[in-house]
Amino acid sequence: MLTYTFSKAEGVSLYEQLYRHIKEDILSGHLTAGEKLPSKRTLAEHLKLSVITVKNAYEQLIAEGYIYGVEKKGYYVSNIEQPLHVEAARHLPSVEKEKTYLLDLVTNSISAENFPFTVWSKLMRQTILEQDMGLLQPMPYNGALALRQAIAENLQQFRGMNIDPEQIIIGAGTEFLYYLLIQLLGRERTYAVEDPGYGKIARIYQSNQVPLRRIGLDYAGLSAQELRRSDADVVHISPSHHYPTGIVMPITRRQELLRWAAEQEGRYILEDDYDSEFRFVGRPIPTMFSTDRHERVIYLNTFSKTIAPSIRISYMILPPHLLSEYRHRLSFYACTVSSFEQYTLAAFMSQGRYEQHINRMRNRYRQKRDAVIGMIRNGPLAGRAEIMEQDAGLHFLMQLDTQLSDQELRRRAAEKGVRLALLSDYYSDSAGAPQHVAVVNYSGIELKTLQQGMERLAELWEE
Amino acid sequence: MLTYTFSKAEGVSLYEQLYRHIKEDILSGHLTAGEKLPSKRTLAEHLKLSVITVKNAYEQLIAEGYIYGVEKKGYYVSNIEQPLHVEAARHLPSVEKEKTYLLDLVTNSISAENFPFTVWSKLMRQTILEQDMGLLQPMPYNGALALRQAIAENLQQFRGMNIDPEQIIIGAGTEFLYYLLIQLLGRERTYAVEDPGYGKIARIYQSNQVPLRRIGLDYAGLSAQELRRSDADVVHISPSHHYPTGIVMPITRRQELLRWAAEQEGRYILEDDYDSEFRFVGRPIPTMFSTDRHERVIYLNTFSKTIAPSIRISYMILPPHLLSEYRHRLSFYACTVSSFEQYTLAAFMSQGRYEQHINRMRNRYRQKRDAVIGMIRNGPLAGRAEIMEQDAGLHFLMQLDTQLSDQELRRRAAEKGVRLALLSDYYSDSAGAPQHVAVVNYSGIELKTLQQGMERLAELWEE
Repeated sequence: MLTYTFSKAEGVSLYEQLYRHIKEDILSGHLTAGEKLPSKRTLAEHLKLSVITVKNAYEQLIAEGYIYGVEKKGYYVSNIEQPLHVEAARHLPSVEKEKTYLLDLVTNSISAENFPFTVWSKLMRQTILEQDMGLLQPMPYNGALALRQAIAENLQQFRGMNIDPEQIIIGAGTEFLYYLLIQLLGRERTYAVEDPGYGKIARIYQSNQVPLRRIGLDYAGLSAQELRRSDADVVHISPSHHYPTGIVMPITRRQELLRWAAEQEGRYILEDDYDSEFRFVGRPIPTMFSTDRHERVIYLNTFSKTIAPSIRISYMILPPHLLSEYRHRLSFYACTVSSFEQYTLAAFMSQGRYEQHINRMRNRYRQKRDAVIGMIRNGPLAGRAEIMEQDAGLHFLMQLDTQLSDQELRRRAAEKGVRLALLSDYYSDSAGAPQHVAVVNYSGIELKTLQQGMERLAELWEE
Repeated sequence: MLTYTFSKAEGVSLYEQLYRHIKEDILSGHLTAGEKLPSKRTLAEHLKLSVITVKNAYEQLIAEGYIYGVEKKGYYVSNIEQPLHVEAARHLPSVEKEKTYLLDLVTNSISAENFPFTVWSKLMRQTILEQDMGLLQPMPYNGALALRQAIAENLQQFRGMNIDPEQIIIGAGTEFLYYLLIQLLGRERTYAVEDPGYGKIARIYQSNQVPLRRIGLDYAGLSAQELRRSDADVVHISPSHHYPTGIVMPITRRQELLRWAAEQEGRYILEDDYDSEFRFVGRPIPTMFSTDRHERVIYLNTFSKTIAPSIRISYMILPPHLLSEYRHRLSFYACTVSSFEQYTLAAFMSQGRYEQHINRMRNRYRQKRDAVIGMIRNGPLAGRAEIMEQDAGLHFLMQLDTQLSDQELRRRAAEKGVRLALLSDYYSDSAGAPQHVAVVNYSGIELKTLQQGMERLAELWEE
């Protein structure tokens, strides 16, 4: 008969102690496959335990598959393999530590100190009070109505877009929306991206293993000719401000692309309107979504660039027939953004705080831009750097007067503590790309370190 | 010469009025393609405006592509098409209104009133104070370290899992994690799901257009034999509590599946451990992840089921070699969960509140389950319904003694205001499925309406 000792000191219940003892006996081989266990009553009497205690232990062992019961016969030991010890310390791959730079022109960080955090946290607290238990209720698949209404109103007022809040689908970041779009439009279609362009977008399409084409640009943005020559069905563009060239697509090219889309069933334009809030000259340009009359344009935008990168709220706007399709096939996906953050942002927008914030940021970025450009033109790089494309957005191009290759330029700059983003990095084939053009992502630059960084960079011309 | 009238009353700046006038003239055809515009100075003098005003209007028109400038010559009207009026009221598809039922056994709603909202909102406020600007900082790709540490500790304590917080990847819902996993493991692999099973999972794989197989179950869960006969590489299972059958996979079957996975390169098991917190008999069963020694198991779990569906926080745990792969190929994706909610949950867990909550919920669900089962056994359905599988989790099966087909059963029950989920719904082929077995998702049932609902349902036997 099984005989074990039990301890009250361990703080482990009797049933669990019994369970462990029997389990160990099975694992160690003291109890072998097929062996019959004593009945609950017999074992309980033998060990001076209650029948309930033995019953609980047996049930746990049954649930875990160590023993099995045969009706009206009793309990038997299962035929199991010896489980194996998993090493406590696994061999985890180590993480590379990122190099830190004196001056980093690659990372386009949003200056968090400019965010009206006091207002935001007040709205957060209000949301907790007002929504209360509502925060725990499930969300519609397309996001909180209050937020979709606030977005529709904002787009009406500042982009002249006339849309219904039902057309908006909220998602946790634009990257996630691309994924939904691939499912909506289908993996059979061929997708096209701008070349040069924002590398992450191509990377997402590649990671999703959909057919991908890269379409070159000319002075007016994505080449309609090249697009026509390709077999692309869906083209991803950022007409209001192309990254990294800064090109604002003129209306003629926009219309050409709209014509291309309308010509054939199943062609679509993904209009990525990120950064359009930070135009410094003139009024924002009307979106392609609002000039399209064939339901060929899907509009995308994000709050990560205008509020903070940690705010993972983006949205897309679908034309009516795609909305039907989406509801039919994809509305089973739950909305990925927490209700709390949606309500907070909705309040931030409907109280006019978002508009205020954008206006303030636009002014600050303009000032910063002017200061950065001034320092480049009049500082240690004077005569060695020429500013190009300064129309819109949070970056501009700077042509450097050097004979070094781009690779060498980057390496030497890095040695001096300056991290350069070069235009050629954004080309799929850097061979034909313009050389010695730096992309200056200025929003996160500190003017003090910029001065130092430019001095270090200027040393390249003295070596 | 262009002649326009300007109004101060409209609240529209002079530059914008001029811009609109010229734009209208271009769109209406009064100004034709190639026509030369007056110089800025000339037009300013003519209209009694400042040169800056004209310059701003021209720049806006250039940016939008309506006119273009030729150096040292002047400004010309572009060759554009007539833009089109987008109807203000689009034809949006209408949304079907969901029928409401007296008794809904399909929706497994989490009773939000049981959530310790006072504690949660206190922690939310604390997070705002303590994290302050930190809430706006970008997150690591895999989520906040504080949350990953809290999860690792919780798993150590309650699941006996020995993992490093680095192995955890946080995402906005399990649905999103499946998507990451498809990218990680590749679209070339064949995925397998349980049949019967939770329909949404198969739907996600289908929507992602990866090869999908359905593997039948026997008394011990997913059939290892059928799995071997299939060409599946990756199998998605919920061994701790299968939906909807409630089967807890015994250790022998688990080991069989682990062996299957280890036998061939590229085979993986996705262990979906949802609902494992709500086991009512004995201790939770060790996870497959912790008994696997070949790095073949990926563990997934979610807080949507234990806290609230609106909390979109799930996580997966990768074995070391997949973690390297993930970092290499997929860590460019930003974390989809807001930092605010991650920090709040981390505090909730590290202060022991999560454990308390789970314990309290387990007791409440057990009481509810007992009450529901009692009412079925002793109420109007006595003798007509038999309870099956009541081991674990938030649902159980109920066999109904009827001659009606499942379809007819559902239709008649719906007429009486009772929404039934039937086991056959969860089979890919309902033909061979067990008939007259209802899946009782009891967590959201009100006992009062249950009594009424059962009375209505019992009428089916009297017709």
